[in-house]
Amino acid sequence: MTTIKHLIDGQLLADTGRTTDVFNPSTGEAIHQVPLASRETVQQAIDAAKAAFPAWRNTPPAKRAQVLFRFKQLLEANEQRIVKLISEEHGKTIEDAAGELKRGIENVEYATAAPELLKGEYSRNVGPNIDAWSDFQPIGVVAGITPFNFPAMVPLWMYPLAIACGNTFVLKPSERDPSSTLLIAELFQEAGLPKGVLNVVHGDKEAVDALIEAPEVKALSFVGSTPIAEYIYSEGTRRGKRVQALGGAKNHAVLMPDADLDNAVSALMGAAYGSCGERCMAISVAVCVGDQIADALVAKIVPQIKALKIGAGTSCGLDMGPLVTRAHQQKVTGYVDDGVAAGAQLVVDGRGLKVDGHEKGFFLGGCLFDRVTPDMRIYKEEIFGPVLCIVRVNSLEEAMQLINDHEYGNGTCIFTRDGEAARLFCDEIEVGMVGVNVPLPVPVAYHSFGGWKRSLFGDLHAYGPDGVRFYTKRKAITQRWPQRATHEAAQFAFPSNG
Amino acid sequence: MTTIKHLIDGQLLADTGRTTDVFNPSTGEAIHQVPLASRETVQQAIDAAKAAFPAWRNTPPAKRAQVLFRFKQLLEANEQRIVKLISEEHGKTIEDAAGELKRGIENVEYATAAPELLKGEYSRNVGPNIDAWSDFQPIGVVAGITPFNFPAMVPLWMYPLAIACGNTFVLKPSERDPSSTLLIAELFQEAGLPKGVLNVVHGDKEAVDALIEAPEVKALSFVGSTPIAEYIYSEGTRRGKRVQALGGAKNHAVLMPDADLDNAVSALMGAAYGSCGERCMAISVAVCVGDQIADALVAKIVPQIKALKIGAGTSCGLDMGPLVTRAHQQKVTGYVDDGVAAGAQLVVDGRGLKVDGHEKGFFLGGCLFDRVTPDMRIYKEEIFGPVLCIVRVNSLEEAMQLINDHEYGNGTCIFTRDGEAARLFCDEIEVGMVGVNVPLPVPVAYHSFGGWKRSLFGDLHAYGPDGVRFYTKRKAITQRWPQRATHEAAQFAFPSNG
Amino acid sequence: MTTIKHLIDGQLLADTGRTTDVFNPSTGEAIHQVPLASRETVQQAIDAAKAAFPAWRNTPPAKRAQVLFRFKQLLEANEQRIVKLISEEHGKTIEDAAGELKRGIENVEYATAAPELLKGEYSRNVGPNIDAWSDFQPIGVVAGITPFNFPAMVPLWMYPLAIACGNTFVLKPSERDPSSTLLIAELFQEAGLPKGVLNVVHGDKEAVDALIEAPEVKALSFVGSTPIAEYIYSEGTRRGKRVQALGGAKNHAVLMPDADLDNAVSALMGAAYGSCGERCMAISVAVCVGDQIADALVAKIVPQIKALKIGAGTSCGLDMGPLVTRAHQQKVTGYVDDGVAAGAQLVVDGRGLKVDGHEKGFFLGGCLFDRVTPDMRIYKEEIFGPVLCIVRVNSLEEAMQLINDHEYGNGTCIFTRDGEAARLFCDEIEVGMVGVNVPLPVPVAYHSFGGWKRSLFGDLHAYGPDGVRFYTKRKAITQRWPQRATHEAAQFAFPSNG
Amino acid sequence: MTTIKHLIDGQLLADTGRTTDVFNPSTGEAIHQVPLASRETVQQAIDAAKAAFPAWRNTPPAKRAQVLFRFKQLLEANEQRIVKLISEEHGKTIEDAAGELKRGIENVEYATAAPELLKGEYSRNVGPNIDAWSDFQPIGVVAGITPFNFPAMVPLWMYPLAIACGNTFVLKPSERDPSSTLLIAELFQEAGLPKGVLNVVHGDKEAVDALIEAPEVKALSFVGSTPIAEYIYSEGTRRGKRVQALGGAKNHAVLMPDADLDNAVSALMGAAYGSCGERCMAISVAVCVGDQIADALVAKIVPQIKALKIGAGTSCGLDMGPLVTRAHQQKVTGYVDDGVAAGAQLVVDGRGLKVDGHEKGFFLGGCLFDRVTPDMRIYKEEIFGPVLCIVRVNSLEEAMQLINDHEYGNGTCIFTRDGEAARLFCDEIEVGMVGVNVPLPVPVAYHSFGGWKRSLFGDLHAYGPDGVRFYTKRKAITQRWPQRATHEAAQFAFPSNG
Repeated sequence: MTTIKHLIDGQLLADTGRTTDVFNPSTGEAIHQVPLASRETVQQAIDAAKAAFPAWRNTPPAKRAQVLFRFKQLLEANEQRIVKLISEEHGKTIEDAAGELKRGIENVEYATAAPELLKGEYSRNVGPNIDAWSDFQPIGVVAGITPFNFPAMVPLWMYPLAIACGNTFVLKPSERDPSSTLLIAELFQEAGLPKGVLNVVHGDKEAVDALIEAPEVKALSFVGSTPIAEYIYSEGTRRGKRVQALGGAKNHAVLMPDADLDNAVSALMGAAYGSCGERCMAISVAVCVGDQIADALVAKIVPQIKALKIGAGTSCGLDMGPLVTRAHQQKVTGYVDDGVAAGAQLVVDGRGLKVDGHEKGFFLGGCLFDRVTPDMRIYKEEIFGPVLCIVRVNSLEEAMQLINDHEYGNGTCIFTRDGEAARLFCDEIEVGMVGVNVPLPVPVAYHSFGGWKRSLFGDLHAYGPDGVRFYTKRKAITQRWPQRATHEAAQFAFPSNG
Repeated sequence: MTTIKHLIDGQLLADTGRTTDVFNPSTGEAIHQVPLASRETVQQAIDAAKAAFPAWRNTPPAKRAQVLFRFKQLLEANEQRIVKLISEEHGKTIEDAAGELKRGIENVEYATAAPELLKGEYSRNVGPNIDAWSDFQPIGVVAGITPFNFPAMVPLWMYPLAIACGNTFVLKPSERDPSSTLLIAELFQEAGLPKGVLNVVHGDKEAVDALIEAPEVKALSFVGSTPIAEYIYSEGTRRGKRVQALGGAKNHAVLMPDADLDNAVSALMGAAYGSCGERCMAISVAVCVGDQIADALVAKIVPQIKALKIGAGTSCGLDMGPLVTRAHQQKVTGYVDDGVAAGAQLVVDGRGLKVDGHEKGFFLGGCLFDRVTPDMRIYKEEIFGPVLCIVRVNSLEEAMQLINDHEYGNGTCIFTRDGEAARLFCDEIEVGMVGVNVPLPVPVAYHSFGGWKRSLFGDLHAYGPDGVRFYTKRKAITQRWPQRATHEAAQFAFPSNG
Repeated sequence: MTTIKHLIDGQLLADTGRTTDVFNPSTGEAIHQVPLASRETVQQAIDAAKAAFPAWRNTPPAKRAQVLFRFKQLLEANEQRIVKLISEEHGKTIEDAAGELKRGIENVEYATAAPELLKGEYSRNVGPNIDAWSDFQPIGVVAGITPFNFPAMVPLWMYPLAIACGNTFVLKPSERDPSSTLLIAELFQEAGLPKGVLNVVHGDKEAVDALIEAPEVKALSFVGSTPIAEYIYSEGTRRGKRVQALGGAKNHAVLMPDADLDNAVSALMGAAYGSCGERCMAISVAVCVGDQIADALVAKIVPQIKALKIGAGTSCGLDMGPLVTRAHQQKVTGYVDDGVAAGAQLVVDGRGLKVDGHEKGFFLGGCLFDRVTPDMRIYKEEIFGPVLCIVRVNSLEEAMQLINDHEYGNGTCIFTRDGEAARLFCDEIEVGMVGVNVPLPVPVAYHSFGGWKRSLFGDLHAYGPDGVRFYTKRKAITQRWPQRATHEAAQFAFPSNG
Repeated sequence: MTTIKHLIDGQLLADTGRTTDVFNPSTGEAIHQVPLASRETVQQAIDAAKAAFPAWRNTPPAKRAQVLFRFKQLLEANEQRIVKLISEEHGKTIEDAAGELKRGIENVEYATAAPELLKGEYSRNVGPNIDAWSDFQPIGVVAGITPFNFPAMVPLWMYPLAIACGNTFVLKPSERDPSSTLLIAELFQEAGLPKGVLNVVHGDKEAVDALIEAPEVKALSFVGSTPIAEYIYSEGTRRGKRVQALGGAKNHAVLMPDADLDNAVSALMGAAYGSCGERCMAISVAVCVGDQIADALVAKIVPQIKALKIGAGTSCGLDMGPLVTRAHQQKVTGYVDDGVAAGAQLVVDGRGLKVDGHEKGFFLGGCLFDRVTPDMRIYKEEIFGPVLCIVRVNSLEEAMQLINDHEYGNGTCIFTRDGEAARLFCDEIEVGMVGVNVPLPVPVAYHSFGGWKRSLFGDLHAYGPDGVRFYTKRKAITQRWPQRATHEAAQFAFPSNG
């Protein structure tokens, strides 16, 4: 069993301290050990990033972009290796891992446009012979803390753009599936990134706290659960850092009576059960407007849930792999038990699933609850498993009220053919990412990702234009030159360029 | 002695609780009483703002802008009344108050462009027949807490733009000079603003805490001292609000050997002594590169400081009025005493100034220290009075190191004719607002205002483009329509629009 | 009968040359004479504009904007006077004239944002210590040539923005209804515009040719018929000028089977018969998808056409006034005759309408043709009168083919509730301005107006962001400063900032 | 001797018609034949582009960008082959050819950002429940006509961006050095470009006229001499096409008395003699402010001109190769003769240069004229050879007047350390591209390239943001959906969203 290394200052470093096991969730076996960095190790990474900053900051953006262009190439050339690592440690299917990686690469592509994205605004003659402009400068050392569910994509939301903007970076990926994350970082190094610009340290709360507390770290990007997002946001901002912390979700899909049901069911199947529901953009609630569409949905989706092809993620042609850990499998199962106890109607029960040859894997079959009500825990909390809840309402307005009243506001979607219903929904729903007949409305890399309410803490969303603004400091310059042969009188009044 | 009122839900409301005195600093006399709102009163304002939000949010931006166009007209028509109130309660000169108001009006002008400023980004075909766009929606009830030194301008940095973006607003202005602030808000009302969209409550820490703690308040804009800025930022963000909190400053002007000295001296006189130095953008340190320019500066500026025309702000043709309060006068005088004790050379001593007919006014003459060193309190702390410190250094690099090492990073400027020196300074100085031969580089309204380091807490600067982003939430929409006669297969892999 | 004057160099000037009559189309009487400027008079206006350019160019945009803010106020204060003049000379109803003026004022509002709109792009470090930025500078003297149908609005599309960008302007309005145009220009002058910045000369082809041929005129904006647009575009560009020339239209509305018919009929009534159809955005063809919607449309719209309230435009509460001239009335009547001869079914015949007390007015009642086919002249040509043609097709695709095959591509709209149909239509229709359930999709002032195909000659559309680009020249600056103590070797190879 | 082929519809096609010789200017020998396409062949290419358009237009921009990413890789991988071809047929040095290619690749990089660059503007609630947005759609078949002096770079200014925007393209490169251009186009094909999207036809005026006259060609980009630029602009626009036509230049460098002379001389050497002066951005006039700097310039530059290493471009370590053709060599020599005859002082005479082993090559040594005056032909006309003219003036104002009076306004630069001089120059000079201590201020790929006056015909500059606008049509959409349960009354007045 190999022990995974840190990447600090361009070097893979072994660590001698605490470790934890990395499992293959399809087999239930530990396959690696990953070190849990001490404060000292984290500080070493921060120091490397700090030392690399001045030279990287002064590298012209167009030159920084060249490294990102090569990084994209290497990611594509190494797709199969990366995808296999993702699947092996996370459990998601190969196809799903490939989708994740592709989305991550799109963020690298976006970052190659740094010269365009970093343009400031120039104004001649804000006053007589006075010019003004803005310059978006890097902020220094930035840290990222990323979750297990997208070990390739979520880190790629962060550091390519931060680095393209001239910052240096310390990444603490999830300790549950760190191998693909590390490989990707090594490929960036191989693409020509100067040492110290990107550092990867594995760890747990000790590492996180070290990053929060270090005064050299000027900004924090986090994706994970809401309680930790809130902790990082309040602890980070309290120390004067800028923080964007993305948390949990409970994403509702509204099915209108005029929905194209075949497509909606296909969409829901993928959005609810893909990656075992372990996505912050997974659809976990289907809100049916009227019993007719609800009944039709149940009739159509039940056989499809029962037919889900479930197995070891690394096999081909599957729909779903296992959950990420034993503990998580038990937690999700507990939610299903709870839903039954609360009176929801369990139409498909995925508990007790055994996969031949993988009896110790952390599997759970697709589950479907009908007639769920807003007071139930399975409605209120994020389950992060292959469990879809159907709620029945009488109108679009009622569906929207339900969504707007929920604690989370990450993603949502509506299935309809009707332009007015879609427009009303998009306008008034209190959710940051909205799909119209798009079940997982993850914005493309050149837009930005972010939820509302308790799904995101911070002013600016992740990646895209907001990412550029987050990873840069605005500097405002106002310039005039002394005019030959003129003498300017002192001005005590507040200058208004009048 | 009149008691000033709150403006809540379109009505001027008297308050029966605690009050404090508003002084005329030129005479030293209390001229008004201002109520200190209880939590209940603050909540009343918040409730009004919350009730006004849905309709205002749905008012088209172009219609919202019409109210701002009329507001601008009314501000111009009432300039003399406003300016007199500012001067009477703050003590700054009439000309200075007029300059402040003009700058404030420029922020109203910027806000009239709301239809342009609120444009989102539209992408056709992010995938086959899939479109995506962003919509910048208002965030709800926003609160502003503003300082005494710009009772007209700083509130106008905030609420016109916030309101143009569709938010509703609760303003807590400084309790030391609230009359102009209130009059301006009434003029906005008169311009056709629906009731409840803008509310003004006077108060102290109790009111501030009520605003911070109220869950209905979604964002806080603050301008004041750094300790309070930090408090508001950490308390506000801890509650999941977005906060921009602008704090203190110690703005350095660098004089290069090739500076146009006549213009530089004129510029410094205004920037150091204008408004008695009570500006967060005041120049309080002149860094001279070489003794030659330092000696020349002293020779030229001393007579001008001694010749400053100081009197009751409301008179005409003056350079400086009094400080804002007795306590502040004593604090600034204490700094001068401290500088002398620390060994700085007090070249001009403004202590003990008496203004005929205003013997009880809070006056202090212009003070100049030479040979100040970075370890002295008068160098390290913000004095906020008519005290200029000269520091002598040997090179531009040394000057820049000094500035970059200071706790604050609000504004700075360089006096030179040399393009390279200016460019180096603009590029590498760790300060948010930089002037080249511009002593007070307050960005024009269509750029944004903000310092770095401990001068601003938050991601986004005040007013201008950053102000628009601060006062809006990004919503990302992704849309496709069911295609006639096509059946889409379920997709379990993470969608990558491939 | 008064003779209208030119406005040249800030003065109203009488002209002693040729004149033509201005009629009140409601009475059929000549009410004014308007001079037809000679080349010399036009040159005088150009000279005034040229002389005014340097100072106006150097006036800071924010100061230029102040004049526009006051202009907006004056336009609003003088609404009734302006509207009456429009109606009197054009014949459109008072309410319609007020709508036109309001739209025009919106363009003034947009122009007040000049400081924001003129921002260039700033890039630090395009190479080591090399910066680059763009500056959008005014182009000099710009001329505008505008049509009779919007004597207030179309000129306001042009010169407020051109002037806000720092240009000076010569306007040649339509000689048929020049009074409102002139009054508006005088109000701009009254708002504080320096003399010579805006000049108005009345005239015919001689004046137009003088503007085209004058080398001092750097850009031409034209709105009118396609043959003249083409003439001006080719003659202007041949002389190296930039030209945008907007021509004719034949705007189709597609009615889908699921259209909300009540709303669609209301929309069509206004769009086809408002302003007697004398609008380049008027709907002149209704394309019905299926006989069912066609029959229903006919059933619903015929009584409304017959009930149109037609009279002297200056009266209140009317739907339609007269056509603009006797000749135009005869031309439109000729089209109706031609349609009948070609076999189209004339369902409502407006010919021969008499309005009591206005027997000499140039009136024509609303006409409706059904079963029009694409080979007919009434389908192929722009009628510019109160004549609506119904074409029946079997599918949306057929409707779109029809529109895409037409010579013109100005505006179009679709009536449907279906998101997919609307999206397909918006995406693939070869028309510049598209409405979804919006019959006259004239873009708001902060978007830009322009047709495709033979409806617009030029790269850039009118007003809005394209207008800013049209009225400015891009200048690209690349800057580096000699570094102290470095010697740079000669570089013979093409520099690539590598 | 091989005959070069066309690239039409993805195939290399031999042509049986007229041909012309391609020379190696270093040896004076014909090395290839190139076909001169007939109208029929050109039409074949246009037809292929037209056929490829619909599918390419509908390919999502992010997918189109993938082809450009691969194209960049292939260009880098094939750098040596390309560079050798450029040098062999054009005569420029290998290092210079590599610089050209690198700049061209930067335009490909910019085009990869198509998804970002094509974003339209989205406005919610332009009226109640009415939304509006803009969509920038491709225009169809675009043609490019490019000059001999940058056979790699100038075509790469055009088609990568045009194609990234969704257009298809027909390129007619210079018939003097077509091989590198063709190879590059083949590499684009190899990168995965669908057939017909890019087509290359060789030819002369017949081919150019065929492109101008074909109605399927919707836009023309041209770079070459001013007479042809003007011809193409007027002939193209006359046919309703959009055209940008870049012509000649006479670029002045101003040397101020405070210039860093060593750097300025190095800069001038490269800018005047690099590529034998065959660049539209070459500096051909040095304007010295004062005799002192003029004398110093002459003293320093003469030995460097005499020391220029001149030889066959394909050798290494040279400064200059031959001119492109025998005829051009004779033309440039004629200009030198003319300057002498006109009384200019020929300080260095490069005529009669023989390069050992390349006696038949089209060589000309570096020439320097002093005391040139504005009335001389060598001052007024573009020489396009290794001839630098010194003009002596007494002030910056005089220098600027000279430049502003010249027919051309492509590029210019100033050498100074003085911020004010640089700012004045940048602001008021009537030239499109301005350098401050940058001799060849070719904007980087993410800004745009374009001269003023008779150096560019058209509204929009080449590549960068203006390139995107040029290669797209603006479409404005305004959308509302029928509201349930509301009935809207007909509106005859012009709608103003009031």
